Amino acid sequence: MSSTATNCELITLGETMWRLSPPGQHQRLEATNSLDIQVGGAESNVAVAVARLGKQVAWWSRLPDNPLGRHVAQTIHAHGVNTANVCWAEGRLGTYFVEFGNAPRPTQVIYDRAHSAASQMQPNDFPWEQLLGAKWLHLTGITPALSQSCLQTVRCAFTEANKAGISISFDLNYRAKLWTPAQAAPILDELAGQASIVIAAQRDIKTLFGIEGELETVLHQLHSRWNGATIVITQSAKGASSFDGHNTYHVPAFHIQNPITIGAGDSFDAGLLCALLDNKPLPDALTYGNALAALKLTMPGDIALVTRHEIENLLQQNPTTLLR
Amino acid sequence: MSSTATNCELITLGETMWRLSPPGQHQRLEATNSLDIQVGGAESNVAVAVARLGKQVAWWSRLPDNPLGRHVAQTIHAHGVNTANVCWAEGRLGTYFVEFGNAPRPTQVIYDRAHSAASQMQPNDFPWEQLLGAKWLHLTGITPALSQSCLQTVRCAFTEANKAGISISFDLNYRAKLWTPAQAAPILDELAGQASIVIAAQRDIKTLFGIEGELETVLHQLHSRWNGATIVITQSAKGASSFDGHNTYHVPAFHIQNPITIGAGDSFDAGLLCALLDNKPLPDALTYGNALAALKLTMPGDIALVTRHEIENLLQQNPTTLLR
Amino acid sequence: MSSTATNCELITLGETMWRLSPPGQHQRLEATNSLDIQVGGAESNVAVAVARLGKQVAWWSRLPDNPLGRHVAQTIHAHGVNTANVCWAEGRLGTYFVEFGNAPRPTQVIYDRAHSAASQMQPNDFPWEQLLGAKWLHLTGITPALSQSCLQTVRCAFTEANKAGISISFDLNYRAKLWTPAQAAPILDELAGQASIVIAAQRDIKTLFGIEGELETVLHQLHSRWNGATIVITQSAKGASSFDGHNTYHVPAFHIQNPITIGAGDSFDAGLLCALLDNKPLPDALTYGNALAALKLTMPGDIALVTRHEIENLLQQNPTTLLR
Amino acid sequence: MSSTATNCELITLGETMWRLSPPGQHQRLEATNSLDIQVGGAESNVAVAVARLGKQVAWWSRLPDNPLGRHVAQTIHAHGVNTANVCWAEGRLGTYFVEFGNAPRPTQVIYDRAHSAASQMQPNDFPWEQLLGAKWLHLTGITPALSQSCLQTVRCAFTEANKAGISISFDLNYRAKLWTPAQAAPILDELAGQASIVIAAQRDIKTLFGIEGELETVLHQLHSRWNGATIVITQSAKGASSFDGHNTYHVPAFHIQNPITIGAGDSFDAGLLCALLDNKPLPDALTYGNALAALKLTMPGDIALVTRHEIENLLQQNPTTLLR
Amino acid sequence: MSSTATNCELITLGETMWRLSPPGQHQRLEATNSLDIQVGGAESNVAVAVARLGKQVAWWSRLPDNPLGRHVAQTIHAHGVNTANVCWAEGRLGTYFVEFGNAPRPTQVIYDRAHSAASQMQPNDFPWEQLLGAKWLHLTGITPALSQSCLQTVRCAFTEANKAGISISFDLNYRAKLWTPAQAAPILDELAGQASIVIAAQRDIKTLFGIEGELETVLHQLHSRWNGATIVITQSAKGASSFDGHNTYHVPAFHIQNPITIGAGDSFDAGLLCALLDNKPLPDALTYGNALAALKLTMPGDIALVTRHEIENLLQQNPTTLLR
Amino acid sequence: MSSTATNCELITLGETMWRLSPPGQHQRLEATNSLDIQVGGAESNVAVAVARLGKQVAWWSRLPDNPLGRHVAQTIHAHGVNTANVCWAEGRLGTYFVEFGNAPRPTQVIYDRAHSAASQMQPNDFPWEQLLGAKWLHLTGITPALSQSCLQTVRCAFTEANKAGISISFDLNYRAKLWTPAQAAPILDELAGQASIVIAAQRDIKTLFGIEGELETVLHQLHSRWNGATIVITQSAKGASSFDGHNTYHVPAFHIQNPITIGAGDSFDAGLLCALLDNKPLPDALTYGNALAALKLTMPGDIALVTRHEIENLLQQNPTTLLR
Repeated sequence: MSSTATNCELITLGETMWRLSPPGQHQRLEATNSLDIQVGGAESNVAVAVARLGKQVAWWSRLPDNPLGRHVAQTIHAHGVNTANVCWAEGRLGTYFVEFGNAPRPTQVIYDRAHSAASQMQPNDFPWEQLLGAKWLHLTGITPALSQSCLQTVRCAFTEANKAGISISFDLNYRAKLWTPAQAAPILDELAGQASIVIAAQRDIKTLFGIEGELETVLHQLHSRWNGATIVITQSAKGASSFDGHNTYHVPAFHIQNPITIGAGDSFDAGLLCALLDNKPLPDALTYGNALAALKLTMPGDIALVTRHEIENLLQQNPTTLLR
Repeated sequence: MSSTATNCELITLGETMWRLSPPGQHQRLEATNSLDIQVGGAESNVAVAVARLGKQVAWWSRLPDNPLGRHVAQTIHAHGVNTANVCWAEGRLGTYFVEFGNAPRPTQVIYDRAHSAASQMQPNDFPWEQLLGAKWLHLTGITPALSQSCLQTVRCAFTEANKAGISISFDLNYRAKLWTPAQAAPILDELAGQASIVIAAQRDIKTLFGIEGELETVLHQLHSRWNGATIVITQSAKGASSFDGHNTYHVPAFHIQNPITIGAGDSFDAGLLCALLDNKPLPDALTYGNALAALKLTMPGDIALVTRHEIENLLQQNPTTLLR
Repeated sequence: MSSTATNCELITLGETMWRLSPPGQHQRLEATNSLDIQVGGAESNVAVAVARLGKQVAWWSRLPDNPLGRHVAQTIHAHGVNTANVCWAEGRLGTYFVEFGNAPRPTQVIYDRAHSAASQMQPNDFPWEQLLGAKWLHLTGITPALSQSCLQTVRCAFTEANKAGISISFDLNYRAKLWTPAQAAPILDELAGQASIVIAAQRDIKTLFGIEGELETVLHQLHSRWNGATIVITQSAKGASSFDGHNTYHVPAFHIQNPITIGAGDSFDAGLLCALLDNKPLPDALTYGNALAALKLTMPGDIALVTRHEIENLLQQNPTTLLR
Repeated sequence: MSSTATNCELITLGETMWRLSPPGQHQRLEATNSLDIQVGGAESNVAVAVARLGKQVAWWSRLPDNPLGRHVAQTIHAHGVNTANVCWAEGRLGTYFVEFGNAPRPTQVIYDRAHSAASQMQPNDFPWEQLLGAKWLHLTGITPALSQSCLQTVRCAFTEANKAGISISFDLNYRAKLWTPAQAAPILDELAGQASIVIAAQRDIKTLFGIEGELETVLHQLHSRWNGATIVITQSAKGASSFDGHNTYHVPAFHIQNPITIGAGDSFDAGLLCALLDNKPLPDALTYGNALAALKLTMPGDIALVTRHEIENLLQQNPTTLLR
Repeated sequence: MSSTATNCELITLGETMWRLSPPGQHQRLEATNSLDIQVGGAESNVAVAVARLGKQVAWWSRLPDNPLGRHVAQTIHAHGVNTANVCWAEGRLGTYFVEFGNAPRPTQVIYDRAHSAASQMQPNDFPWEQLLGAKWLHLTGITPALSQSCLQTVRCAFTEANKAGISISFDLNYRAKLWTPAQAAPILDELAGQASIVIAAQRDIKTLFGIEGELETVLHQLHSRWNGATIVITQSAKGASSFDGHNTYHVPAFHIQNPITIGAGDSFDAGLLCALLDNKPLPDALTYGNALAALKLTMPGDIALVTRHEIENLLQQNPTTLLR
Repeated sequence: MSSTATNCELITLGETMWRLSPPGQHQRLEATNSLDIQVGGAESNVAVAVARLGKQVAWWSRLPDNPLGRHVAQTIHAHGVNTANVCWAEGRLGTYFVEFGNAPRPTQVIYDRAHSAASQMQPNDFPWEQLLGAKWLHLTGITPALSQSCLQTVRCAFTEANKAGISISFDLNYRAKLWTPAQAAPILDELAGQASIVIAAQRDIKTLFGIEGELETVLHQLHSRWNGATIVITQSAKGASSFDGHNTYHVPAFHIQNPITIGAGDSFDAGLLCALLDNKPLPDALTYGNALAALKLTMPGDIALVTRHEIENLLQQNPTTLLR
């Protein structure tokens, strides 16, 4: 993996796994005889989606030095993401099993990520001095849930990014299968307080901090709580809202008939960050995030395999459904 | 296949076939180059679904002693159903071809079950004395339609079960491709009159016996006609109704967005019987049947690959659609 | 390919290609590792659908003399279409890549048909004297867009058919990826003026000739413009309208829940032509076309794999959705 | 299916089935979850292979009038075989299950062909007067083993062909799973005595008639026994031998590294018949049969998907193994 | 899972995993997009193979209580193995990734079994009193390598089996990826000294104990070292040798052209044990083991999907390669 | 695609296509219903294989700016090859269809590469000044066969590389389906005369230049003819020979049981170049090329998905065939 990290506009850091699912529609995991492989990780999903839109992006992580780890790195590198700072190590690749549901039967996710190579990442696995060349660091609340050394690594990332003076976006991404609200809340609170932008699902704000009620109030409350960070609250099919200390914005989501839900949040983050890197104003960036999330929802896999042209087409509400 | 039939709570008896369908969605049978194999039979579908919920269940049948027959027995045994009383024989395995439709194009079923090993079952293929150890015998109106010797076997099963003093549930399951209403009506009438519970689709009651009209009246009429049996009438998406000689109950069906219909009736029977074996009251048992049918409708295959936990989740109307 | 073209009721002429699509639902072309092959071409789609309904049909074309060309001819011949006048040649098989969409992401078609063997067809590739034995010739506006020699061939076909005194149906089938409205309009106008029936999508009439407004007026206008041809205007989900110089007819389309859109227009043409060959009156023929298009919309592939029995079933609005 | 049988050079008559096999290599039938479909029947295998080489060929048979039957007819018609005299009937399609072996585990064939629509063919299903236009009729010893009415049909075919003065080739094709040597020998003996050419495997000659020993003697013996018919004895990998009343010929088989054995005998017959229709001398025709069998052995399926060019290439022992 | 463990002739105990491999031949793990699932574990492989041959067999283990664990139990139960003593637990399912080689590229196995539910088994997970009803206990040297609690469980199994007076077979099954020779040797030595039969690969004897040289001498040496146990030494394609304290036997292996190697040793053990349970003399049991291993080598998967009939066929050296 | 071309050790330039093949073994192209996609091109095959071994490699080419072109670039970039100098253009992606043979049936390649975007490459599509940073340029005799502008581009590449003072390796790679020996010989001769290393298959030397005879003589002759270039002659299974002006070397090929031949020559080039970049002596580099070719021959696809570790393992003739 050849290229160096200098001059990356966006750096993300986190674990990426194999997502293993039964082929076909509606097949139960218990009854399958084969598994489709997708590569998924909140931070690399963001990295790939943003790199595809033409930005210089790096993903830092830790992978097992075996065919599984190489498969992950290649998939991410394929889309133009710099993987030079992947730390190759002993150990296993985290995996998760997804059985897609069919309402009222829910989609099920079985994590098998404990003891992964990535969960053993440590601060000195990474060349923090390279943050200097970047514009933006994107982190999520999944990484600190994985292990003590992962928490230390994320803390170090926050410290170093702030030292380097680059912006930090932080998606709380609370995962109930990894830790309890009681475990998560103080840590996510601490980290959010150091970010430039904090992105969170409305339901997680309630679960973690008991904050609910009128959305504008919640946005203001979190803005104060997290030292003036721009707050973005996502509400699934209802869209996204944001407060930047000056204005409150709400942008509605696009309607999707058959949404394939996994990875939509990461795509929203990617669209938002890409637009901000393009110096678009916040409400346009929120809409850009919504559009990328909408397109991701139309395709399998965790990653938004989307072009700029397709986002712009959607933003123009081009109603054609067959291009020939 | 090792275990003996003693102490089974539920015994079912009937033919099981290979169900062969084009892979993928909407593919025509005429144009396919491969076939997916599922194992399906009304009585074994019930047996598997009930055994999965923790009951001791046996399935009695007749199978060809070749790889196809072994495939069927293994699939049923996998889920914990006792298959010790399968009678291994010469002959062919019944098959049926299913082409799933896409409205307004209907789903098509092509039976190729004539002359199967199962259709040649006879009373002395089975150890009727083992009914003594059981609580419940489940039979359907498919078996007597298959051949004279199948009819004799079912008649013998009714006689022996009544002799042994165990309850009999009988699902009329009228199959227009196997016999005419004129052929079926007297035989199903005769058999229903010996059952403890009779389950029938509303449309079959009309087709076979010309009985229609206000549902409560129909239930009372059938209750009298069939010597005081508990009557259960299923109405597809409208739910199920029952009269036990004392009360009339109606339970609505669950709403399913993309139902995969084959096997839902068998799953209803399985849920109903499992709940009755659990000594639940009749209306709860009807609801349990509806819930199991609802979950079956969300998955391919004829069999409800469901756990108790999932049924209970649905009964609590748990609205989560993604568990992670 | 053995049979001769004499006594064909319907002859069609045009290019047929391999249609290559990612397997499964919603997979992106960019991310696929395999491609499903379907055979598709507007004129051969019509030929196959009509031949399946019992008519003597021939398809004239030009194919590369290699396994790909043979695959195409075999697929068309399988359904009973006479392929004796396929001209076997050097060159490549036209292909097109279809990525099925998921709203709001549109279906994408990438043509790779330039320089195909078919695009090099010339008037003297075909035995025009055989038109004498036929009743009907069906052509589309795709062929003249492919090359100069294709245009000459189509002009020759019009001339020869009119000389032989057989009816010509002409589906404008404007393809924006092959030529501009400015290029297409004069040629399609010229050809439509020599046809017995002209079929066109409402939106193409507007795009090509700037004609819009009240439908009846448009029909009358085109009838005059094209020398008294019967005009059929298709409006997708809204149905089809026609004016034969005497009466104006409108028949509504059938409602399809999950339409698979490619090939529906060709199926409409096939149903219409088959009914006209059966001497059905025009409004019944329009309905027949709608019914065949409706059934095509329920299945993958470009071709309506439908039987007479199925069309008649639909026309009787038979509501059964599971036949067993 | 449009074309008429007049002017066919070769007519074959017999049952064709779906051959169902586990996908992949070495998979056991008992453990498979899907089946690949191939179309196979000794006589249609010959018909397809000869039609592909440019001859006018018809296949007469009886098929169920359902999607399975249509699939069979389409597959055979695809390659240019006239199927106008297929008799469409009620009933089932014969099937057979093939599990390919891996030495020392043998390939297993499980027939499920009893009670098929084809097994109920009768003499008056077919227009025997059309034999007049043909040059050659090809029959096998499988058909008379299927049922009494099949035997009558074959007897009728022999009588009518001899009446029409056309040549008959008869491949004994003894199938031990269909009848015993004691049942088969007198009937095959009777039929062979009316043929122009009799083709038989060396081992069947021994099993059925107890004739073994020096090959030339055997050929002479059978020539006399069967009223002067040309005798062809096949010896698998050793090649084929023949005596035409004048000369004895032996041609060695081609060496195949990974032979896929099913259908090779039919391909030999096809190559032999095609060459004789081309008026090649007998030894060249034997070699042509060997070459076509050799190429069939290199591909899956029962049918030799081969071109003249490929046979000629092989006959020139062209040693290239990669053409690019 | 219904049946109880009483009256089992053979009990095995150990971990079973999902074996995940790229589909098709020769595909690299790094480049695959899907994985075929097989169920494999040395002890359950033995259990399934012996149960298929008609013996009462139980498999004791520990599995995660999720769809993956249920898939494993169902697969093993399908073949008639009693799984009533599987201990359902929290945790992950052990997996291993197999990339089949193509000489000179070796087959690669990547274990991902650390921290599995099975590796946390403990002595009190199992009802040791049920050993009393059994005839034979089969253990391998894999289990003690998995964890301290696994080692304790195996030690307990040895103690309890000896207390119950039942025979113990112990296959050393040294796995270099799980522990070093220095770690393994003392423990395997200790355990082998308590077994009735010890089975070991010749190369492992050398690796672990440094014992090599003339085979008969080695057998005698081990017989003494391990307190008079019957010693069986396997030598892959060279066959197997044994010394029972009285006689030395050598039986050659069957020749397999395309061996699929994983699971062959377990099949040998299964054949040997089944024959001993049938009271066959030791040399016949060794041959029976070789035959079952040979048949396993002809099929994919870890498990010998074989019938008694097939073993007996092979033992008669039946040379037929196509049964039809 | 983010990285810049500066500091690449190796640059390759040429066309890359989609290779489309029937799935499974031995399936005919004519009979397939789907196609597996591989990415293949002589120069990108070299680039990927060398980049995987840790070198900085760039591949320069021209691709259509559509999903097919992106698929190609992503696949190559995945393995660490710099694709920043791909020129994105209008047009089609070259494809080729490969039907793998089964002796004596040869593998067939059908090219469909005319009019591709790559075939329209021109000198000014590429930043020749970047050659200055590189050590080595690798070109093949395929590119000049594609079009006049391709020939000009290759001539320009030779001129610029020589100007920049970097080494040029040139693999003649004569493709008989692209041009005749008479067309190819003068151009390949001209280009070879400007290279540092010329690699050619022994049979091509004879076909193109009529040079045959004793190998050492041929090597010397070509060395003189091509201005002192190091000459490497490959002889498939016989190995490779080379003369560098001082010494003649011959290294034997590794034996492969089931070789999958396409791409082996490119892998040889890659191994050779990588070793030369590592400053290994020529005979070691030839062996390194042979080893990489050998490993490629064990896997599907055109590209050697190999690690340094695997090459070194093979070079040590490590005989293990199962690593677990």
